[in-house]
Amino acid sequence: MAGSESSIYKSCLVFSLTANLFFGVNLYVGRRAAWKRSSDEVDTRGSLSWSGRAAAEAESAAAEECSGHGRAYLDGMVVDGRPVCECNTCYGGPDCSLFLPSCSANADGGDPLFLEPFWKQHAESSAVVVAGWHRMSYSFSDYTFLSRELESLLRKLHSQVGNAVTDGKHIVFGVGSAQLLNAAVHALSPDNSSHPASVVASIPYYQLYQMQTEFFDSAGCSFQGDAARWKNATNTTGDIIEFVTAPNNPDGLLNEAVLHGPNVKTIYDRAYYWPHFTGIPSPVDEDLSIFTISKLTGHAGSRFGWALIRDEDVYQRMNWYVQVNTMGVSRDTQLRALKLLKVLIEDGGREIFEFGYKMMTKRWDRLRKTMSVTNRFSLQKIPPENCTFFQKVREPTPAYAWVKCEREEDRNCIEILNAAKILGRGGSVFHDDERYVRLSLIRSDDDFDDLISRLERLASGEDGAKTI
Amino acid sequence: MAGSESSIYKSCLVFSLTANLFFGVNLYVGRRAAWKRSSDEVDTRGSLSWSGRAAAEAESAAAEECSGHGRAYLDGMVVDGRPVCECNTCYGGPDCSLFLPSCSANADGGDPLFLEPFWKQHAESSAVVVAGWHRMSYSFSDYTFLSRELESLLRKLHSQVGNAVTDGKHIVFGVGSAQLLNAAVHALSPDNSSHPASVVASIPYYQLYQMQTEFFDSAGCSFQGDAARWKNATNTTGDIIEFVTAPNNPDGLLNEAVLHGPNVKTIYDRAYYWPHFTGIPSPVDEDLSIFTISKLTGHAGSRFGWALIRDEDVYQRMNWYVQVNTMGVSRDTQLRALKLLKVLIEDGGREIFEFGYKMMTKRWDRLRKTMSVTNRFSLQKIPPENCTFFQKVREPTPAYAWVKCEREEDRNCIEILNAAKILGRGGSVFHDDERYVRLSLIRSDDDFDDLISRLERLASGEDGAKTI
Repeated sequence: MAGSESSIYKSCLVFSLTANLFFGVNLYVGRRAAWKRSSDEVDTRGSLSWSGRAAAEAESAAAEECSGHGRAYLDGMVVDGRPVCECNTCYGGPDCSLFLPSCSANADGGDPLFLEPFWKQHAESSAVVVAGWHRMSYSFSDYTFLSRELESLLRKLHSQVGNAVTDGKHIVFGVGSAQLLNAAVHALSPDNSSHPASVVASIPYYQLYQMQTEFFDSAGCSFQGDAARWKNATNTTGDIIEFVTAPNNPDGLLNEAVLHGPNVKTIYDRAYYWPHFTGIPSPVDEDLSIFTISKLTGHAGSRFGWALIRDEDVYQRMNWYVQVNTMGVSRDTQLRALKLLKVLIEDGGREIFEFGYKMMTKRWDRLRKTMSVTNRFSLQKIPPENCTFFQKVREPTPAYAWVKCEREEDRNCIEILNAAKILGRGGSVFHDDERYVRLSLIRSDDDFDDLISRLERLASGEDGAKTI
Repeated sequence: MAGSESSIYKSCLVFSLTANLFFGVNLYVGRRAAWKRSSDEVDTRGSLSWSGRAAAEAESAAAEECSGHGRAYLDGMVVDGRPVCECNTCYGGPDCSLFLPSCSANADGGDPLFLEPFWKQHAESSAVVVAGWHRMSYSFSDYTFLSRELESLLRKLHSQVGNAVTDGKHIVFGVGSAQLLNAAVHALSPDNSSHPASVVASIPYYQLYQMQTEFFDSAGCSFQGDAARWKNATNTTGDIIEFVTAPNNPDGLLNEAVLHGPNVKTIYDRAYYWPHFTGIPSPVDEDLSIFTISKLTGHAGSRFGWALIRDEDVYQRMNWYVQVNTMGVSRDTQLRALKLLKVLIEDGGREIFEFGYKMMTKRWDRLRKTMSVTNRFSLQKIPPENCTFFQKVREPTPAYAWVKCEREEDRNCIEILNAAKILGRGGSVFHDDERYVRLSLIRSDDDFDDLISRLERLASGEDGAKTI
């Protein structure tokens, strides 16, 4: 009995010791893991106090999947305590999973969402936390409206990319390049309105130039249409202000100034002069060049642009325009632009431009293939360009396709495309022939996929229209 | 032996079981605690992934003490990996602990830093995290440039405060009220410039009205000075646009329109119509009123304003102005304004307005006491007003003191104050007599303390000037 009792105790002890070992190891390992976890957290969230709630809110909004066809934003409509999904063009339903088959593909506006996946991949380095008391003043501590840190980052970026010389240039920030375009026209116009300046651009041109000049209706200038018409007008009484857009919106050509002379002043719109879209043959070194993050990082909604200006007086006048107009650019926007550009600066822009260039190349390949089955439409032709950034000669991959309807009877090209359920922007918007249509290639993947699928049907004649 | 062996086993087993119990309980409790901890953290930082680093960066910048006489910002200059302190006006040194005794007190600009401590007290609820891919598009999903959530919050706020009727009104956002002032002038001016509108305001008036109208030099309007001069001008050929600022900048009076009639259009600048500064006798119900967060929450640097507009056509024209000028207001700013206003909405604005009113009352008491020892200077007199928000009759506490130099020989008052090391804004800036000076009372505590101390010396004659 005693032996059997002893052996029962023995077995129980062995079991109990094993259990102890199990518990002990578990406890030790668990505690180590917990400690390790918390010490890892020191760097990132160990000491968080007031910012944790905002961070959790943002992550919660970002965690809404929306089936990959939309996104929930922190400031979107809230239903049942959750921000609702905002769906891509042809998707619907509470989680954007519903494809709307009769919907038109949107290739109209220049929404640069092709870069959205890049920022989702760089969520950590691009996030920014704005404290409730962040920069409440009208001005920075040097009494300007402009962050010197951001200014120096912009100079560094241009030098890394090699697309603009910033030495000897002043910098003015604007609420998007939109504000700077008119600030530049205003700064280059005479004070004395007896000889107003004539504002011109080469057809096809971005409509905002004309729209702004006509709408604001300043006594110092007036819009006078096509630059080419002024080529031989030597005896003009006033100054001429020429807009040069390079790469051009809509057709992507690396335009050059048409007009030259002592009474000609040139505004270079360089919104698209980045390696996503074009070769960078050399850094530009112009009297007045305007840039924006809209087509560089894709943050059109942030409204941030900047101008490089050689002349001190023109700089002062543009600066004054922005001051009287809006008292500078939002400090919240400047903070965010700084954070985004830091991501670019870190590797000299290599990653974002490779991402953008690859994406645009793929899209152009698909578009060309789709269009190759028909002679009904043609695409603009742009010669290959040397790119000092990628150190190779490359095919340009402009932001927009400039499509021409080639059939005699297809005089109004946008009507043809609209009938085939494709939204674009007709040639007349750019003061050009209605045979042309601008199709945006920089929108979301969904928008581009829809576009290709609509174009395929149109090109193959499936939509009912006969192709050549 | 067997018994003794058995009893040893028995003792060991008891010990082992006790150990098991200990380990088991420990493990269970530990895990529960860990689970509890993590479930508590779900609300604040449990699931943080990509936002933790940004949050830690922001908290680290905010943790710089700067001796209570400055602040370090996330986007400030960085030295040795830490953002440097930006000191208040009369402070210097790396940690802002150095008082600069010969420095002039700054009571010039209207920087609304008196509200900064409020936001530091509400750090958690007012912080906002902006994801790298937040609202990259040009427009919201309803194709507007304006957040509907923010619009509805503004309507709610006006209704809670009781300072404006928003039913039947359209809302346009602007890059600060600055942009909206000119957008309103433009919208109310005729398209046909053969009869340009005359823009007027009552002296003393905010200089930006004149500055904008003259600088943008639109063919549709021109600035024509004092409204009073137009009172009896019945046979004017064009329209008249009158700016009415209530409470007025600089003197705080609740101005009313001077001009009336079928050809008169009125723009009400309501930047200061909040319970910090004035009684709210009743909600205004005007054709066109302009507001801003600059003097409401104190976020002048964010550049966010809005207009309440009755007429559909005027609304469309102002909306178009903002669109052509800047393509709307930064989405980053709209997100932040939403977060800040949510803090106000939560308790109907009670806390912020009590904070602001108390602060302004204290400052006015100190100012009056300081000025009471001399007859050399006088302050504007504003009658007590009924305040429906605080439900009492109260003394107004305007944002600015409108100081008059009473001595015959003190014709240029700002010169007198500058000599006493006080920066303010001379009467001529507001098109008024140089006997007046505007002193800002809404700046930081340091600026206000410096002002009082300089005024004390001036009033008591210690600065060398003889007082009456």
